[in-house]
Amino acid sequence: MKKILPVLLATACAVSAQAKIVTQVVEYKQGDTTLEGFLAYEDAVAGKRPGVLIVHQWLGLTDYEKQRAEQIAALGYVAFCADIYGKGVRPKDTTAAGVEATKYKSNRALLRLRVNAGLDELKRNKLVDAGRVAAIGYCFGGTTVLELARSGAAVNGVVSFHGGLDSPAPADGKNIKCKVLVCHGADDPFEKASDLAAFEDEMRQANVDWVLIKYGGAVHSFTQPMAGNDNSKGAAYNERADRRSWTAMKLFFTGIFN
Amino acid sequence: MKKILPVLLATACAVSAQAKIVTQVVEYKQGDTTLEGFLAYEDAVAGKRPGVLIVHQWLGLTDYEKQRAEQIAALGYVAFCADIYGKGVRPKDTTAAGVEATKYKSNRALLRLRVNAGLDELKRNKLVDAGRVAAIGYCFGGTTVLELARSGAAVNGVVSFHGGLDSPAPADGKNIKCKVLVCHGADDPFEKASDLAAFEDEMRQANVDWVLIKYGGAVHSFTQPMAGNDNSKGAAYNERADRRSWTAMKLFFTGIFN
Repeated sequence: MKKILPVLLATACAVSAQAKIVTQVVEYKQGDTTLEGFLAYEDAVAGKRPGVLIVHQWLGLTDYEKQRAEQIAALGYVAFCADIYGKGVRPKDTTAAGVEATKYKSNRALLRLRVNAGLDELKRNKLVDAGRVAAIGYCFGGTTVLELARSGAAVNGVVSFHGGLDSPAPADGKNIKCKVLVCHGADDPFEKASDLAAFEDEMRQANVDWVLIKYGGAVHSFTQPMAGNDNSKGAAYNERADRRSWTAMKLFFTGIFN
Repeated sequence: MKKILPVLLATACAVSAQAKIVTQVVEYKQGDTTLEGFLAYEDAVAGKRPGVLIVHQWLGLTDYEKQRAEQIAALGYVAFCADIYGKGVRPKDTTAAGVEATKYKSNRALLRLRVNAGLDELKRNKLVDAGRVAAIGYCFGGTTVLELARSGAAVNGVVSFHGGLDSPAPADGKNIKCKVLVCHGADDPFEKASDLAAFEDEMRQANVDWVLIKYGGAVHSFTQPMAGNDNSKGAAYNERADRRSWTAMKLFFTGIFN
């Protein structure tokens, strides 16, 4: 038996080493607008598996989301980064990003169309079990996945990482069919206490299955290394909150996909 | 190999089946007061291991905490239920419980002495690695483990389940040396928004490593089946929040003990 066990372990390691993440840029449409998303999956996984939609922060679809897609693919899911802004629309700085994000935050109907187009694209993928899908989003993307839920989309769960929680139509909470997880920086200066309270009320009134986690010492953008590490700017990376929220997301997935 | 694997599995199962939880009523003292706690550990675990102090709700040390102690022992830790009220002081109803709890909530110095006596008793146990200890508490016990932290006790972490978060001396937050996890029912009517805000501010000012989780649809006592299931009473069991908060606690332990 002593000789056999190492062989078993070596075999397991060999399988793991062979697994690789396949990525692909994917063009798709919402109405007449061409969008350019990004797909990632592990080729060693056989058959259909849950799908996870990833929605970008205000700078649009960047390498950051693509890296998250690869991390999620490594968990055994099909990951698809949605493009809300449109092919080639990638703001060069935060001023331009603010303009672009505002277009959608002030037109929630359009935002819902765009994110649902991404969800539909994910569900069409032949590797995806369309009955087991989730959506996650960062900052602007957090707001967006909440809008996806509020649109009544058939999705098992959504996770917002430091997303804006405000809604111009709180009554739409009643459309939510999925579980909701909100990962929030307790020191996020961009989210007013009144917005948090309104969000909780929206979930409460609509009897949603929701959890909100507040991470002490974390400000806006706590999952994003490119935000730097100066909390006084209101947006900064926080390794501890990043790690904990990622773990919370994985547990959430286990709960909704099993 | 096909024949050997089942043997390995059977062996593993046999070990697991042999493991049993040892329990013991333990008398100890705080000053001249005799206290009666409850110890639980798994006898199959070898050597020193982390210890977890469990602090009871307002009815005093009941079978509920003893059951939690056995669950925690099954995780491989030494569990010890503190007795805050004193040997034989076990309120018979909620009126008596309110009177007893108030004695300590209005005398935080005494509360700290009592809970620290429990912690010391746990650390003295020869099976406990005294450098790896945590404290958890329910309702009144949640308040109590936060007071333990505020006393500056050498503990790696505390977890409050639907505990009162208010403090008559918020500046004592600066004494906190451990990580703090608060599991809170989002619909708990006994915890005012102002108490929550004050707690967050206390943690913030003292630069504590803290996380607060709000469970949607959960009121006070959400981990306690004996609370019934009528949310309109303000205290009720919530299986979902119970399960999720238990998982959060286990992850928290993994983080502080490893």
